Amino acid sequence: MAAKLTFWFELASTYSYLSAMRIDALAETAGVEVTWRPVPLGPIFGAQGWTTSPFNIYEAKGAYMWRDMDRLCAARGLTFRKPDPFPQNSIRAARVALAALETSHGPAFVRALYLAQFTQGKDIADPATIEEALRSAHLPASLAEAADDPTYKDALKAASAESIQKGLFGAPSFTVGDELFWGDDRLEDALNWAVSA
Amino acid sequence: MAAKLTFWFELASTYSYLSAMRIDALAETAGVEVTWRPVPLGPIFGAQGWTTSPFNIYEAKGAYMWRDMDRLCAARGLTFRKPDPFPQNSIRAARVALAALETSHGPAFVRALYLAQFTQGKDIADPATIEEALRSAHLPASLAEAADDPTYKDALKAASAESIQKGLFGAPSFTVGDELFWGDDRLEDALNWAVSA
Repeated sequence: MAAKLTFWFELASTYSYLSAMRIDALAETAGVEVTWRPVPLGPIFGAQGWTTSPFNIYEAKGAYMWRDMDRLCAARGLTFRKPDPFPQNSIRAARVALAALETSHGPAFVRALYLAQFTQGKDIADPATIEEALRSAHLPASLAEAADDPTYKDALKAASAESIQKGLFGAPSFTVGDELFWGDDRLEDALNWAVSA
Repeated sequence: MAAKLTFWFELASTYSYLSAMRIDALAETAGVEVTWRPVPLGPIFGAQGWTTSPFNIYEAKGAYMWRDMDRLCAARGLTFRKPDPFPQNSIRAARVALAALETSHGPAFVRALYLAQFTQGKDIADPATIEEALRSAHLPASLAEAADDPTYKDALKAASAESIQKGLFGAPSFTVGDELFWGDDRLEDALNWAVSA
Protein backbone atom coordinates (compact mmCIF):
# COMPACT_ATOMS: atom_id res chain seq x y z
CA MET A 1 0.00 0.00 0.00
CA ALA A 2 1.35 3.41 -0.97
CA ALA A 3 2.33 5.82 1.78
CA LYS A 4 -0.24 8.62 2.05
CA LEU A 5 -0.30 12.14 3.42
CA THR A 6 -2.95 14.87 3.47
CA PHE A 7 -1.78 18.42 2.80
CA TRP A 8 -4.09 21.04 4.37
CA PHE A 9 -3.53 24.49 2.96
CA GLU A 10 -5.13 27.91 3.28
CA LEU A 11 -4.94 29.87 0.03
CA ALA A 12 -4.23 33.15 1.87
CA SER A 13 -1.44 31.64 4.02
CA THR A 14 2.16 32.61 3.41
CA TYR A 15 3.71 29.41 4.77
CA SER A 16 1.17 27.30 2.86
CA TYR A 17 2.56 28.91 -0.30
CA LEU A 18 6.03 27.63 0.66
CA SER A 19 4.78 24.07 1.09
CA ALA A 20 2.64 24.11 -2.04
CA MET A 21 5.69 25.00 -4.13
CA ARG A 22 7.77 22.06 -2.91
CA ILE A 23 5.51 19.26 -1.65
CA ASP A 24 5.04 17.43 -4.97
CA ALA A 25 8.77 17.08 -5.67
CA LEU A 26 9.54 15.96 -2.10
CA ALA A 27 6.61 13.54 -2.01
CA GLU A 28 7.56 11.99 -5.33
CA THR A 29 11.11 11.40 -4.10
CA ALA A 30 9.77 9.88 -0.88
CA GLY A 31 7.15 7.78 -2.70
CA VAL A 32 4.25 9.36 -0.84
CA GLU A 33 0.83 10.03 -2.35
CA VAL A 34 -0.44 13.50 -1.42
CA THR A 35 -4.08 14.56 -1.09
CA TRP A 36 -4.42 18.34 -1.39
CA ARG A 37 -7.16 19.83 0.78
CA PRO A 38 -8.02 23.52 1.00
CA VAL A 39 -9.05 24.57 4.50
CA PRO A 40 -10.13 28.12 5.34
CA LEU A 41 -8.47 29.33 8.52
CA GLY A 42 -11.26 31.86 9.25
CA PRO A 43 -13.40 29.41 11.25
CA ILE A 44 -10.31 27.99 13.00
CA PHE A 45 -9.12 31.47 14.00
CA GLY A 46 -12.68 32.41 14.95
CA ALA A 47 -12.77 29.45 17.36
CA GLN A 48 -9.74 31.06 19.08
CA GLY A 49 -11.42 34.46 19.28
CA TRP A 50 -9.46 36.04 16.42
CA THR A 51 -11.11 38.10 13.69
CA THR A 52 -8.03 38.34 11.47
CA SER A 53 -4.66 36.65 11.04
CA PRO A 54 -2.60 36.41 14.25
CA PHE A 55 0.17 38.00 12.16
CA ASN A 56 -1.97 41.15 12.10
CA ILE A 57 -3.01 40.88 15.76
CA TYR A 58 0.50 40.32 17.16
CA GLU A 59 2.74 43.00 15.69
CA ALA A 60 6.15 41.51 16.55
CA LYS A 61 5.09 38.09 15.27
CA GLY A 62 3.82 39.66 12.06
CA ALA A 63 6.98 41.70 11.46
CA TYR A 64 9.03 38.55 11.99
CA MET A 65 6.91 36.50 9.59
CA TRP A 66 7.41 38.92 6.69
CA ARG A 67 11.17 38.93 7.25
CA ASP A 68 11.18 35.13 7.60
CA MET A 69 9.29 34.79 4.30
CA ASP A 70 11.76 37.13 2.56
CA ARG A 71 14.68 35.01 3.76
CA LEU A 72 13.06 31.63 3.02
CA CYS A 73 11.88 32.64 -0.44
CA ALA A 74 15.31 34.04 -1.30
CA ALA A 75 16.93 30.80 -0.16
CA ARG A 76 14.50 28.73 -2.25
CA GLY A 77 14.70 30.82 -5.41
CA LEU A 78 11.14 32.11 -5.07
CA THR A 79 10.18 35.73 -5.43
CA PHE A 80 7.93 37.20 -2.77
CA ARG A 81 5.88 40.32 -2.19
CA LYS A 82 3.50 41.09 0.62
CA PRO A 83 -0.12 40.89 -0.58
CA ASP A 84 -2.41 43.86 -0.10
CA PRO A 85 -4.73 43.27 1.63
CA PHE A 86 -3.42 40.54 3.92
CA PRO A 87 -4.91 38.12 4.53
CA GLN A 88 -6.89 37.96 1.30
CA ASN A 89 -10.41 36.61 1.21
CA SER A 90 -9.79 33.08 -0.05
CA ILE A 91 -13.25 31.55 0.26
CA ARG A 92 -14.34 31.73 -3.37
CA ALA A 93 -10.93 30.63 -4.62
CA ALA A 94 -10.99 27.70 -2.17
CA ARG A 95 -14.34 26.49 -3.54
CA VAL A 96 -12.92 26.57 -7.06
CA ALA A 97 -9.84 24.73 -5.78
CA LEU A 98 -12.11 21.96 -4.46
CA ALA A 99 -13.54 21.57 -7.97
CA ALA A 100 -10.11 21.81 -9.61
CA LEU A 101 -8.72 19.15 -7.27
CA GLU A 102 -11.25 16.67 -8.68
CA THR A 103 -8.94 16.71 -11.69
CA SER A 104 -5.21 16.03 -11.89
CA HIS A 105 -4.65 19.75 -12.61
CA GLY A 106 -5.71 20.84 -9.12
CA PRO A 107 -2.25 21.33 -7.63
CA ALA A 108 -1.18 23.40 -10.67
CA PHE A 109 -4.22 25.62 -10.16
CA VAL A 110 -3.41 26.08 -6.48
CA ARG A 111 0.22 26.93 -7.25
CA ALA A 112 -0.92 29.44 -9.88
CA LEU A 113 -3.10 31.17 -7.27
CA TYR A 114 -0.20 31.34 -4.80
CA LEU A 115 2.14 32.77 -7.43
CA ALA A 116 -0.45 35.37 -8.49
CA GLN A 117 -0.91 36.42 -4.87
CA PHE A 118 2.59 36.24 -3.47
CA THR A 119 4.72 37.16 -6.48
CA GLN A 120 2.48 39.28 -8.75
CA GLY A 121 0.46 41.27 -6.21
CA LYS A 122 -2.89 40.00 -7.49
CA ASP A 123 -5.96 39.52 -5.30
CA ILE A 124 -7.28 35.95 -5.25
CA ALA A 125 -10.71 37.29 -4.29
CA ASP A 126 -10.84 38.82 -7.79
CA PRO A 127 -12.67 36.53 -10.30
CA ALA A 128 -10.16 37.57 -12.97
CA THR A 129 -7.29 36.16 -10.88
CA ILE A 130 -9.14 32.87 -10.44
CA GLU A 131 -9.91 32.63 -14.16
CA GLU A 132 -6.31 33.33 -15.08
CA ALA A 133 -5.11 30.63 -12.69
CA LEU A 134 -7.56 28.16 -14.21
CA ARG A 135 -6.26 29.00 -17.67
CA SER A 136 -2.63 28.61 -16.65
CA ALA A 137 -3.46 25.20 -15.14
CA HIS A 138 -5.19 24.14 -18.38
CA LEU A 139 -8.58 23.94 -16.72
CA PRO A 140 -11.87 25.19 -18.21
CA ALA A 141 -12.98 28.67 -17.13
CA SER A 142 -16.38 27.18 -16.28
CA LEU A 143 -14.85 25.69 -13.12
CA ALA A 144 -15.01 29.22 -11.67
CA GLU A 145 -18.76 28.64 -11.23
CA ALA A 146 -17.87 26.42 -8.26
CA ALA A 147 -17.41 29.65 -6.28
CA ASP A 148 -21.19 30.03 -6.14
CA ASP A 149 -22.13 26.35 -6.12
CA PRO A 150 -23.85 25.16 -2.91
CA THR A 151 -22.15 21.79 -3.27
CA TYR A 152 -18.70 23.33 -2.91
CA LYS A 153 -19.88 25.81 -0.28
CA ASP A 154 -21.01 22.87 1.83
CA ALA A 155 -17.91 20.81 1.08
CA LEU A 156 -15.65 23.64 2.24
CA LYS A 157 -17.63 24.07 5.46
CA ALA A 158 -17.37 20.32 6.04
CA ALA A 159 -13.59 20.48 5.46
CA SER A 160 -13.32 23.21 8.08
CA ALA A 161 -15.26 21.19 10.62
CA GLU A 162 -13.21 18.07 9.85
CA SER A 163 -9.92 19.95 10.21
CA ILE A 164 -10.89 21.33 13.61
CA GLN A 165 -11.94 17.85 14.69
CA LYS A 166 -8.50 16.60 13.62
CA GLY A 167 -6.85 19.21 15.84
CA LEU A 168 -5.70 21.66 13.17
CA PHE A 169 -5.06 25.19 14.38
CA GLY A 170 -3.05 26.66 11.50
CA ALA A 171 -1.79 26.06 7.99
CA PRO A 172 -0.05 24.45 6.36
CA SER A 173 -0.71 21.24 8.24
CA PHE A 174 -0.05 17.66 7.25
CA THR A 175 -1.85 14.58 8.52
CA VAL A 176 -0.87 10.93 8.29
CA GLY A 177 -3.83 9.07 9.76
CA ASP A 178 -4.39 10.78 13.13
CA GLU A 179 -0.85 12.14 13.29
CA LEU A 180 -0.72 15.92 12.86
CA PHE A 181 2.23 18.01 11.70
CA TRP A 182 2.02 21.80 11.61
CA GLY A 183 4.03 24.20 9.50
CA ASP A 184 6.20 24.12 6.41
CA ASP A 185 9.09 23.24 8.75
CA ARG A 186 7.47 19.86 9.47
CA LEU A 187 6.91 18.79 5.86
CA GLU A 188 9.95 16.51 5.79
CA ASP A 189 9.02 14.96 9.16
CA ALA A 190 5.48 14.35 7.95
CA LEU A 191 6.70 12.64 4.77
CA ASN A 192 9.06 10.47 6.82
CA TRP A 193 6.19 9.55 9.11
CA ALA A 194 4.05 8.59 6.10
CA VAL A 195 6.83 6.36 4.77
CA SER A 196 7.33 4.63 8.15
CA ALA A 197 3.60 4.30 8.92
CA MET B 1 36.55 37.90 13.52
CA ALA B 2 34.68 34.90 14.88
CA ALA B 3 31.07 34.41 13.80
CA LYS B 4 28.74 35.21 16.68
CA LEU B 5 25.18 34.35 17.63
CA THR B 6 23.03 35.16 20.66
CA PHE B 7 20.79 32.37 21.99
CA TRP B 8 17.76 33.69 23.86
CA PHE B 9 16.10 31.03 25.99
CA GLU B 10 13.26 30.88 28.52
CA LEU B 11 13.94 28.28 31.21
CA ALA B 12 10.29 27.18 31.27
CA SER B 13 10.07 26.79 27.48
CA THR B 14 9.83 23.36 25.91
CA TYR B 15 11.36 24.28 22.57
CA SER B 16 14.15 26.22 24.32
CA TYR B 17 15.06 22.91 25.99
CA LEU B 18 15.48 21.34 22.55
CA SER B 19 17.85 24.08 21.39
CA ALA B 20 19.84 24.14 24.63
CA MET B 21 20.61 20.46 24.25
CA ARG B 22 22.06 20.80 20.75
CA ILE B 23 23.29 24.34 20.17
CA ASP B 24 26.84 23.91 21.50
CA ALA B 25 27.65 20.93 19.31
CA LEU B 26 26.17 22.56 16.19
CA ALA B 27 27.86 25.90 16.89
CA GLU B 28 31.23 24.27 17.42
CA THR B 29 30.95 22.46 14.10
CA ALA B 30 29.95 25.71 12.39
CA GLY B 31 32.66 27.73 14.12
CA VAL B 32 30.17 30.10 15.75
CA GLU B 33 30.58 31.65 19.20
CA VAL B 34 27.34 31.50 21.18
CA THR B 35 26.22 33.93 23.89
CA TRP B 36 23.56 32.35 26.12
CA ARG B 37 20.95 34.81 27.38
CA PRO B 38 18.00 33.91 29.61
CA VAL B 39 14.88 35.91 28.79
CA PRO B 40 11.64 35.54 30.72
CA LEU B 41 8.65 35.28 28.40
CA GLY B 42 6.23 36.62 31.04
CA PRO B 43 6.70 40.28 30.10
CA ILE B 44 6.69 39.44 26.37
CA PHE B 45 3.44 37.47 26.72
CA GLY B 46 2.03 40.20 28.95
CA ALA B 47 2.65 42.75 26.17
CA GLN B 48 0.40 40.57 23.97
CA GLY B 49 -2.34 40.41 26.60
CA TRP B 50 -1.61 36.86 27.72
CA THR B 51 -1.40 35.85 31.37
CA THR B 52 -0.05 32.34 30.75
CA SER B 53 1.60 30.36 27.97
CA PRO B 54 -0.27 30.46 24.64
CA PHE B 55 -0.05 26.66 24.79
CA ASN B 56 -2.43 26.85 27.76
CA ILE B 57 -4.65 29.52 26.20
CA TYR B 58 -5.06 27.82 22.82
CA GLU B 59 -6.05 24.22 23.49
CA ALA B 60 -5.41 22.74 20.03
CA LYS B 61 -2.01 24.44 19.81
CA GLY B 62 -1.12 23.12 23.27
CA ALA B 63 -2.17 19.55 22.52
CA TYR B 64 -0.12 19.68 19.34
CA MET B 65 2.96 21.03 21.12
CA TRP B 66 3.04 18.15 23.64
CA ARG B 67 2.75 15.60 20.84
CA ASP B 68 5.39 17.45 18.79
CA MET B 69 7.77 17.44 21.78
CA ASP B 70 7.21 13.69 22.27
CA ARG B 71 8.09 13.03 18.64
CA LEU B 72 11.08 15.38 18.49
CA CYS B 73 12.58 14.15 21.76
CA ALA B 74 12.18 10.54 20.68
CA ALA B 75 13.91 11.31 17.37
CA ARG B 76 16.78 13.05 19.18
CA GLY B 77 17.31 10.45 21.88
CA LEU B 78 16.01 12.71 24.66
CA THR B 79 13.48 11.63 27.24
CA PHE B 80 10.56 13.96 27.89
CA ARG B 81 7.81 14.40 30.42
CA LYS B 82 5.31 17.20 30.74
CA PRO B 83 6.16 19.42 33.72
CA ASP B 84 3.55 20.05 36.38
CA PRO B 85 2.82 22.90 36.62
CA PHE B 86 3.37 24.23 33.13
CA PRO B 87 4.77 26.75 32.60
CA GLN B 88 6.97 26.75 35.67
CA ASN B 89 7.96 29.97 37.40
CA SER B 90 11.45 30.45 36.01
CA ILE B 91 12.33 33.91 37.37
CA ARG B 92 14.55 32.87 40.28
CA ALA B 93 16.30 30.20 38.22
CA ALA B 94 16.88 32.74 35.43
CA ARG B 95 18.60 35.14 37.83
CA VAL B 96 20.89 32.33 38.96
CA ALA B 97 21.51 31.46 35.31
CA LEU B 98 22.68 35.04 34.71
CA ALA B 99 25.24 34.59 37.49
CA ALA B 100 26.22 31.11 36.28
CA LEU B 101 26.72 32.40 32.73
CA GLU B 102 29.45 34.72 34.01
CA THR B 103 31.46 31.49 34.24
CA SER B 104 32.19 28.90 31.58
CA HIS B 105 29.87 26.47 33.41
CA GLY B 106 26.73 28.48 32.63
CA PRO B 107 25.47 26.36 29.71
CA ALA B 108 25.95 23.17 31.78
CA PHE B 109 23.84 24.70 34.57
CA VAL B 110 21.11 25.67 32.11
CA ARG B 111 21.05 22.19 30.58
CA ALA B 112 20.88 20.65 34.08
CA LEU B 113 17.81 22.78 34.83
CA TYR B 114 16.12 21.72 31.59
CA LEU B 115 16.84 18.05 32.26
CA ALA B 116 15.52 18.33 35.83
CA GLN B 117 12.33 19.95 34.56
CA PHE B 118 11.63 18.06 31.36
CA THR B 119 12.97 14.59 32.13
CA GLN B 120 12.81 14.23 35.92
CA GLY B 121 9.60 16.10 36.76
CA LYS B 122 11.31 18.56 39.09
CA ASP B 123 10.15 22.15 39.63
CA ILE B 124 12.77 24.76 38.73
CA ALA B 125 11.08 27.21 41.10
CA ASP B 126 12.22 24.93 43.94
CA PRO B 127 15.53 26.11 45.48
CA ALA B 128 16.58 22.46 45.87
CA THR B 129 16.33 21.95 42.09
CA ILE B 130 18.46 25.03 41.47
CA GLU B 131 21.08 23.90 44.00
CA GLU B 132 21.24 20.44 42.50
CA ALA B 133 21.73 21.91 39.02
CA LEU B 134 24.54 24.13 40.33
CA ARG B 135 26.22 21.08 41.86
CA SER B 136 25.92 19.03 38.70
CA ALA B 137 27.49 21.91 36.72
CA HIS B 138 30.37 22.10 39.23
CA LEU B 139 29.33 25.56 40.41
CA PRO B 140 29.29 26.75 44.04
CA ALA B 141 25.93 26.55 45.85
CA SER B 142 26.42 30.18 46.86
CA LEU B 143 25.49 31.25 43.33
CA ALA B 144 21.89 30.48 44.30
CA GLU B 145 21.93 33.77 46.21
CA ALA B 146 21.67 35.54 42.86
CA ALA B 147 17.96 34.70 42.97
CA ASP B 148 17.48 37.45 45.57
CA ASP B 149 20.22 39.81 44.39
CA PRO B 150 18.96 43.20 43.08
CA THR B 151 21.78 43.24 40.52
CA TYR B 152 20.45 40.13 38.80
CA LYS B 153 16.83 41.19 39.28
CA ASP B 154 17.62 44.38 37.37
CA ALA B 155 19.76 42.60 34.79
CA LEU B 156 16.92 40.21 33.99
CA LYS B 157 14.43 43.04 33.63
CA ALA B 158 16.85 44.80 31.31
CA ALA B 159 17.23 41.62 29.24
CA SER B 160 13.44 41.45 28.87
CA ALA B 161 13.24 45.05 27.70
CA GLU B 162 16.14 44.55 25.30
CA SER B 163 14.60 41.40 23.85
CA ILE B 164 11.28 43.15 23.18
CA GLN B 165 13.18 46.02 21.56
CA LYS B 166 14.91 43.46 19.32
CA GLY B 167 11.51 42.14 18.22
CA LEU B 168 11.47 38.87 20.18
CA PHE B 169 8.02 37.41 20.77
CA GLY B 170 8.84 33.86 21.84
CA ALA B 171 11.64 31.47 22.72
CA PRO B 172 13.98 30.11 21.74
CA SER B 173 15.15 32.93 19.52
CA PHE B 174 18.50 33.56 17.93
CA THR B 175 19.95 36.90 16.88
CA VAL B 176 22.86 37.69 14.61
CA GLY B 177 23.21 41.46 14.82
CA ASP B 178 19.71 42.74 14.07
CA GLU B 179 18.67 39.55 12.30
CA LEU B 180 16.11 37.55 14.29
CA PHE B 181 15.36 33.83 14.03
CA TRP B 182 12.56 32.25 16.05
CA GLY B 183 12.19 28.66 17.10
CA ASP B 184 14.34 25.56 17.43
CA ASP B 185 13.53 24.91 13.75
CA ARG B 186 15.55 27.98 12.75
CA LEU B 187 18.73 27.14 14.69
CA GLU B 188 20.57 25.83 11.63
CA ASP B 189 19.49 28.86 9.55
CA ALA B 190 20.67 31.22 12.28
CA LEU B 191 24.07 29.52 12.47
CA ASN B 192 24.42 29.69 8.70
CA TRP B 193 23.53 33.39 8.82
CA ALA B 194 26.19 33.97 11.49
CA VAL B 195 28.78 32.23 9.35
CA SER B 196 27.87 34.26 6.24
CA ALA B 197 27.54 37.57 8.07
